Amino acid sequence: MRVLGVDPGLTRCGVGVVEGIAGRPLTMLGVGVVRTPADVDLSHRLLAVEQGIEEWLDEHRPEFVAVERVFSQHNVRTVMGTAQASAVAMLCAARRGIPVALHTPSEVKAAVTGTGRADKAQVGAMVTRLLRLSAPPRPADAADALALAICHIWRAPAQNRLQQAVARHTLNATKGRTA
Amino acid sequence: MRVLGVDPGLTRCGVGVVEGIAGRPLTMLGVGVVRTPADVDLSHRLLAVEQGIEEWLDEHRPEFVAVERVFSQHNVRTVMGTAQASAVAMLCAARRGIPVALHTPSEVKAAVTGTGRADKAQVGAMVTRLLRLSAPPRPADAADALALAICHIWRAPAQNRLQQAVARHTLNATKGRTA
Repeated sequence: MRVLGVDPGLTRCGVGVVEGIAGRPLTMLGVGVVRTPADVDLSHRLLAVEQGIEEWLDEHRPEFVAVERVFSQHNVRTVMGTAQASAVAMLCAARRGIPVALHTPSEVKAAVTGTGRADKAQVGAMVTRLLRLSAPPRPADAADALALAICHIWRAPAQNRLQQAVARHTLNATKGRTA
Repeated sequence: MRVLGVDPGLTRCGVGVVEGIAGRPLTMLGVGVVRTPADVDLSHRLLAVEQGIEEWLDEHRPEFVAVERVFSQHNVRTVMGTAQASAVAMLCAARRGIPVALHTPSEVKAAVTGTGRADKAQVGAMVTRLLRLSAPPRPADAADALALAICHIWRAPAQNRLQQAVARHTLNATKGRTA
């Protein structure tokens, strides 16, 4: 299973691709950050996020996209941008018929460290160990994107296959091919 | 000047197209609502919003898109979906090099009714009068989209032309044509 994890953000959108199956060693295929300049207007920042995500989808052809679920109780000043960047990532995946899964930050932390209250350093250290990297990925957004992908691989593989079938069906119905 | 107003939402996204210039009678070219079913997953709802907005852009070829600015202090349960739907509308416009303007609800109310605290009925009544319609557009999201477009036409026409030039330049730079 190949998963693109996305830690959404307008200034820095973390992206990481992990391949593997639950219970076996995992492989990192790529990690990075899509950045957009703060002095450009919002619509063009969203366009830059779209172009960045499209490049990652083109290069790695993931079977799933795992996006961090955004909560509005977080920092009010940044949460709108985060929600909007996550919308762009979800849209890019849906357009290609790739199923999207949302995981909360605590689900991701619990999956990779065993505790939902782990800090950034713990998440980075576990991602480094699980993917057998020589150093923790920088910045933290990149490590978080990998953690999202790992979390997704480890959660309910059977459910994932079901979701994949549903996503394909929904896409076809939306396009009016089968509806 | 032809403006597509968008009152963003996942369940109902109001859209309305108004043509005219400040100080002259305005003409409504179209009004409607893009709806997405609540039982479909979020990524496919965003895809349906994108398809709906694309159809309105194809049909009416607006020179500007005016979107309601979303604030996080509003209803927490719906604000994330509203932010995400607005991101899709902005993205569709930016892709075509159409400048996007954000107006707050109180700016829109003040523009069409003279007071930033007008209620839905007052906004609907003024939109009906200004566009010489036989009845207020339903639902309220559709009337709000028309009010956004009117607000945009009435605000700083010179500034709009500048923004249009900047948007074209930014799009070209993003595409790597001129950068």
